[in-house]
Amino acid sequence: MSPRVEHGAVQRGRGRRPGGPDTRTVIVDAARSSFAANGYDKSSLRGIARDAGVDPALVHHYFDGKAALFAETMAVPVNPAEVIARIIAGDRDRLGWRLVETFLTIWEPLERRQAMVALARSSMTSEEAARMLREFLGREVFGRIAASTGAPDPQLRGALAASQMIGLVMARYVLRVPGLADTSPTELVERLGPVLQGYLVDEPRQRE
Amino acid sequence: MSPRVEHGAVQRGRGRRPGGPDTRTVIVDAARSSFAANGYDKSSLRGIARDAGVDPALVHHYFDGKAALFAETMAVPVNPAEVIARIIAGDRDRLGWRLVETFLTIWEPLERRQAMVALARSSMTSEEAARMLREFLGREVFGRIAASTGAPDPQLRGALAASQMIGLVMARYVLRVPGLADTSPTELVERLGPVLQGYLVDEPRQRE
Repeated sequence: MSPRVEHGAVQRGRGRRPGGPDTRTVIVDAARSSFAANGYDKSSLRGIARDAGVDPALVHHYFDGKAALFAETMAVPVNPAEVIARIIAGDRDRLGWRLVETFLTIWEPLERRQAMVALARSSMTSEEAARMLREFLGREVFGRIAASTGAPDPQLRGALAASQMIGLVMARYVLRVPGLADTSPTELVERLGPVLQGYLVDEPRQRE
Repeated sequence: MSPRVEHGAVQRGRGRRPGGPDTRTVIVDAARSSFAANGYDKSSLRGIARDAGVDPALVHHYFDGKAALFAETMAVPVNPAEVIARIIAGDRDRLGWRLVETFLTIWEPLERRQAMVALARSSMTSEEAARMLREFLGREVFGRIAASTGAPDPQLRGALAASQMIGLVMARYVLRVPGLADTSPTELVERLGPVLQGYLVDEPRQRE
């Protein structure tokens, strides 16, 4: 077995690590350190490979890109790129509903709930975590979804969509506000779908 | 000067405290302990007066009801009852816009921002804080606003409105998501107003 490498430690002078059961963990540890120290945008797969003491090809072998590696460091049980591709792929006139539906599919299962709530909580409590999440949600998640529609102001649209989905997570899963915590996913998709559609796709409504 | 009373301590056997410059602090400390131990709903002004060793009339003298006392324990710089009365009082067809506008007036001033962000963060990090905030937001804030319109499903409507406003705070002030952190309050009122109006007042839109 390979010797254990401490969190973020760099193996130098012994050559690069070969692939192995431990290598994946070493890469995730190096990535976690890099995202925390440099933020999401300024971390690169090449830099993470260097910190982990492995060949960059090995990082690509284990992880489907930076977003997937970030999700793994945050213990998110899905591949963000796949989820976003699925949301973007369908009918533009249903984008808002599909976003809410997909989002709830990820958050609802009880066996994931505790880990996801812990993640939401920790992301709110430090400037470091806030920076990582801001860059990840802004660029990789809501930025991509908003850019896919061709509507003007994609950055503001994506951010408005992010604000409602962050608020849904906080109100339903973390605070468990009565009336929202006990509403069915189907009802939530019906209520929130048109709002997300409005933020992402529709012309802004004028003050009546 | 009165002797300092430790956080949550009860003075017994010496009779009730007279009013004085220290009494207000003693009441706030007792209230903070009670909200943390019993939640918002189960705390009473009478119980808090007893814990503080003061006459209940003194609590009413210093604080305009339980919501105001709660706001003081959370270092919120406004009286919730007054703010909510102002939001409810106006034209029902502008309720959503007025809610967003009033909300931003409270959060925007830079000299308050740091304290409010600290409050938002701490409210997300413990089960105890989550319970207090859930009961306070559900009952005193969004519950009252939603009930004022006479629309069906006030609890769900209030909770949906709460989710968007919580998400706005998190995305704009805590995470500072690009595109939302740098948008003017006027633009936010225009974008979010119709959504809050929809949650609180309008008939739910059907899937098109």
